[in-house]
Amino acid sequence: MFKLNQQLQIDSHELFEHQDCLLRLHKNAILPWVLIIPKTKVIEFCELPEKTQLRINKAGKVIGRYFIKNHKSEKINFAAIGNVVQQLHVHVVGRSKNDPLWPDVVWGNELPEKKYSSNEFNQIKGDLMVLLETCK
Amino acid sequence: MFKLNQQLQIDSHELFEHQDCLLRLHKNAILPWVLIIPKTKVIEFCELPEKTQLRINKAGKVIGRYFIKNHKSEKINFAAIGNVVQQLHVHVVGRSKNDPLWPDVVWGNELPEKKYSSNEFNQIKGDLMVLLETCK
Repeated sequence: MFKLNQQLQIDSHELFEHQDCLLRLHKNAILPWVLIIPKTKVIEFCELPEKTQLRINKAGKVIGRYFIKNHKSEKINFAAIGNVVQQLHVHVVGRSKNDPLWPDVVWGNELPEKKYSSNEFNQIKGDLMVLLETCK
Repeated sequence: MFKLNQQLQIDSHELFEHQDCLLRLHKNAILPWVLIIPKTKVIEFCELPEKTQLRINKAGKVIGRYFIKNHKSEKINFAAIGNVVQQLHVHVVGRSKNDPLWPDVVWGNELPEKKYSSNEFNQIKGDLMVLLETCK
């Protein structure tokens, strides 16, 4: 049975499930940032079955394009790190020259905190649901 | 014509070419760290052709396993960031609880500097060449 890591749960809002992956939106609205969490015990991204890798990459492409189109992102950071939380989670982060950390990475650096309004959250959830549905 | 970005060239040693990707070893020997640089103008990892994505992931798997087996790595960081150098390069970094930055990420944090001896470099180059040759 797959159980979501508690820290990931605390740091992010549930979006929806997509092809055996949990999609979650990082709680900090200062940057567009989605976590793709495959329901697996595998820890390393490159050790996933190729089918799962391609699904995650495809979701990453759709999410990245959405960030670029709708959130003024200029660069996508796509990363599986897992030094703090081992449960495999792939970061898709939309970055831009105007964000408060550019060009530093978001991991381990202090970001100003901003909450999503329900409207903002529902917009992103709805948009991504439609976009990802069409790429299955 | 593909031309390697100058900063990547400065930061890393040439290993060899593998399936249309340049493989380079980060100059700092304090951590095992390889850059996979596909010879492409595409900037985002998830925008690469699926075939290229799978090749990079497979190389990442081989390199990661090698770091775990031969360099006492406990966790692999696999990431395409590109905020500073846009030319697409995928980091494969072997991390362990004993390394000087754990659990912080290697990007943007100061690492103690250590140089590879020629012997160490040639060992890694030779090992990876053999391992990657068999996974083509």
